[in-house]
Amino acid sequence: MNFDIDDLICSISTPPGVGAIAIVRISGNDSLMLLEKVFKPFKAILVSELQPKKAYYGQILDNDTLIDEVLVTYFKAPHSYTGDDIIEIACHGSQFIQRQILQLLIDKGCRTAKPGEFTMRAFINGKMDLTQAEAVGDLIHSRNSWSHKAALTQMKGSFSKRLMVLSDKLLHLISLVELELDFSEEDVEFADRGMLKTLLTETQTEVQQLYNSYSAGQVIKSGIPVAIVGQPNAGKSTLLNKILQEERAIVSEIAGTTRDTIEDTIVLDSIEFRFIDTAGLRKTGDTIEKMGIERSLDKVNRAWIVLFLFDSTSNIADVKHAFELVLTSSDTNQHIVAVANKVDLLKTDQRDSKIQEIADSIGIAPSDMVYISAKHEKNIPELVTKLVEHAKEMLPDEDSLIVYNTRQYELLMKILVALGDTLTALENQLTGDLLAFELRKVLTFMGELTGTVISPDMVLANIFKNFCVGK
Amino acid sequence: MNFDIDDLICSISTPPGVGAIAIVRISGNDSLMLLEKVFKPFKAILVSELQPKKAYYGQILDNDTLIDEVLVTYFKAPHSYTGDDIIEIACHGSQFIQRQILQLLIDKGCRTAKPGEFTMRAFINGKMDLTQAEAVGDLIHSRNSWSHKAALTQMKGSFSKRLMVLSDKLLHLISLVELELDFSEEDVEFADRGMLKTLLTETQTEVQQLYNSYSAGQVIKSGIPVAIVGQPNAGKSTLLNKILQEERAIVSEIAGTTRDTIEDTIVLDSIEFRFIDTAGLRKTGDTIEKMGIERSLDKVNRAWIVLFLFDSTSNIADVKHAFELVLTSSDTNQHIVAVANKVDLLKTDQRDSKIQEIADSIGIAPSDMVYISAKHEKNIPELVTKLVEHAKEMLPDEDSLIVYNTRQYELLMKILVALGDTLTALENQLTGDLLAFELRKVLTFMGELTGTVISPDMVLANIFKNFCVGK
Repeated sequence: MNFDIDDLICSISTPPGVGAIAIVRISGNDSLMLLEKVFKPFKAILVSELQPKKAYYGQILDNDTLIDEVLVTYFKAPHSYTGDDIIEIACHGSQFIQRQILQLLIDKGCRTAKPGEFTMRAFINGKMDLTQAEAVGDLIHSRNSWSHKAALTQMKGSFSKRLMVLSDKLLHLISLVELELDFSEEDVEFADRGMLKTLLTETQTEVQQLYNSYSAGQVIKSGIPVAIVGQPNAGKSTLLNKILQEERAIVSEIAGTTRDTIEDTIVLDSIEFRFIDTAGLRKTGDTIEKMGIERSLDKVNRAWIVLFLFDSTSNIADVKHAFELVLTSSDTNQHIVAVANKVDLLKTDQRDSKIQEIADSIGIAPSDMVYISAKHEKNIPELVTKLVEHAKEMLPDEDSLIVYNTRQYELLMKILVALGDTLTALENQLTGDLLAFELRKVLTFMGELTGTVISPDMVLANIFKNFCVGK
Repeated sequence: MNFDIDDLICSISTPPGVGAIAIVRISGNDSLMLLEKVFKPFKAILVSELQPKKAYYGQILDNDTLIDEVLVTYFKAPHSYTGDDIIEIACHGSQFIQRQILQLLIDKGCRTAKPGEFTMRAFINGKMDLTQAEAVGDLIHSRNSWSHKAALTQMKGSFSKRLMVLSDKLLHLISLVELELDFSEEDVEFADRGMLKTLLTETQTEVQQLYNSYSAGQVIKSGIPVAIVGQPNAGKSTLLNKILQEERAIVSEIAGTTRDTIEDTIVLDSIEFRFIDTAGLRKTGDTIEKMGIERSLDKVNRAWIVLFLFDSTSNIADVKHAFELVLTSSDTNQHIVAVANKVDLLKTDQRDSKIQEIADSIGIAPSDMVYISAKHEKNIPELVTKLVEHAKEMLPDEDSLIVYNTRQYELLMKILVALGDTLTALENQLTGDLLAFELRKVLTFMGELTGTVISPDMVLANIFKNFCVGK
């Protein structure tokens, strides 16, 4: 990785851009010596005597040239984020000042930190394990309450703790299995094979759960896929635009609603949705149009929620045909929301009967439909509420452990394979050395997951610690 | 202005966006009580007992729901930026977390701060005067070393101090003039009219200097205007693109070089340049093209530096004609840089003689020209160096007091007018009451500039303080 952990590193830790305040952070064990060269506290105190965790006003000076008046806080190792000495310089948030300070620090012997290098140091210094370090990154990039919660849970080490409990139990059993090797001539079995099987199965179940959570994790991270389908000209694009507008109108910046730069992704009530606009569904002989319809149906297939939009004024057979196409591509796990558009165009005295006819033809009760006018922005908030309700039903519990990270996902897969191999070895009553070999693979992958390196030495150390038989 | 200064206010003080750290700031005298509702330190300490200026790790909780693990620093009034109690919450820099914390604070009784409201409170609480408050805003938006320096100087109150010295002297004299009014029947002159005239003239000179600095201030703020002019197809647009590219290539993000979103504005060596591309200059009978050429020449007129670009392979008469057009529109204050483009297309043995001929025709020595190939990016750094050299010659001294602010500029103008009126009144030997009236106008505008309200009461108070004659 080519990181030198003894280097003094610095970076701007606040978001890029202009603000009232920006923070420049220095980490490394000569931090105070570096600070001494650039900082003059207003109080009569030597930089070398700054009290940890205390904020000091003063000047950042390049020789005699004033760069800025700042607030400096010193965090003494090991009581800092990285575990090394850390200096935080809170300066005025002009980009010019931020750069000047960084440049000055570089001139005085610091180097700019690589992405994630502060957290990497925290990991190296044992302040956190790998999954916690990864959670820091996830936390910073969380855009909705689910991913935020998951990152916080993982940052607190819940994920590792759960794995560690399992891995400690396995380590205990592997120790016993390996101990048998020393007594191979005596044909003893220190490790209860039944207990081992139970533990392996238990582990398999837990790991499988974590492994399975990844698909939900991905959806939570990138947004719940919502396909808007229906006949041509049912008003799909208009509706999409109005939902995006609505979102802007009903909830302020503060209330947690954001329109992402990725087109058509929005956060509504802390849940991220990814809207997928599709081509209109209708009977057609045109080959190109047929391909478009197939693509639309494929999108239906991948959506969690399907908004079936129909034009209330249109021919009932057309609505029915479009809906049947949707049904062929959806499954029972999906929520289908029937949305009647252009209801304002129906004559008042005909409205109920027309809706009832459509309802009968597609088999959805009128009371389960949402009635809107996309064009005149009628009832959009009601539709949004419905979306959020469905999403909450489908999402895993906010407190459950969810895997978002691809590295972790891949290691979980490796652990599952290794667990399967071990169970097979156990069933085939393979010898202790082969069993130990398979078990070690499981532990290695678990160790990789949390970043602890489980070496054979550790396994040995564990034997002697717990099971010194005096030999 | 509808700011309630007793409200608890909060805002995100770091730049908008995602970063490692963000800071949420609370100001108001119930800050600690608010913090108590949302913050739980890891250390066993009550929030009400937090030591000022000390950083505490802990959790931001919405009832029992963890929002983030943060670092909190409390600044006790009056030793804070605003002069009220301030709480700084350094949280993880996800936008979601930033918003959640802000929302939580609002739910607990805070309101979001209006732009500049923290600084306004600092002014109201007497932590700084108006020009200093304005300087804070300027500092945050400074993009180059000149505006940065000017803002820092003004933030330290240099501007106000200079005005205050003058205004104190004037106040002394006005007191004397007003004292005369009490003795009007006795025809005494406490205020020496000669001294008054000297002081007024001195003030006039200083205010005039500040007033004059505004145009330089504007240029420093928005970039030194550089017009790129020359014949059609001399390579003006290519050169402009290469300079902008060069800037990106030769200096990293750290080194202080930025490409602004405003097209064609860049910072080179801490100086901001604003490049102005122009239409080609040549002899033409076409009315439309003539208008284009006139516009180009008008831009030449407003530029500080003129890059006269010519195609080395072209007809000497054409180069001469274009250059003469430039000369007619430029003045002696401008720097004209002759840039020979496409020198690589000249045959080696003919290069020197061709350049000499052009040099003779436009009256610029070959050694004063810059030779480039815009297309092949030859010698662009040399041209940039030349630009920076010229700019440094033309810019005011970095240490000089420069006015950037329009409000200040307008008040300086009012002061100048009032000073002129006072001097006229003095020359016309107007009576003390009329003279005092004019002088008061000068002081009022000075007071408006620094934000101190100089009321007639103050003038009176000054009389009694210094000149109590026992009456």
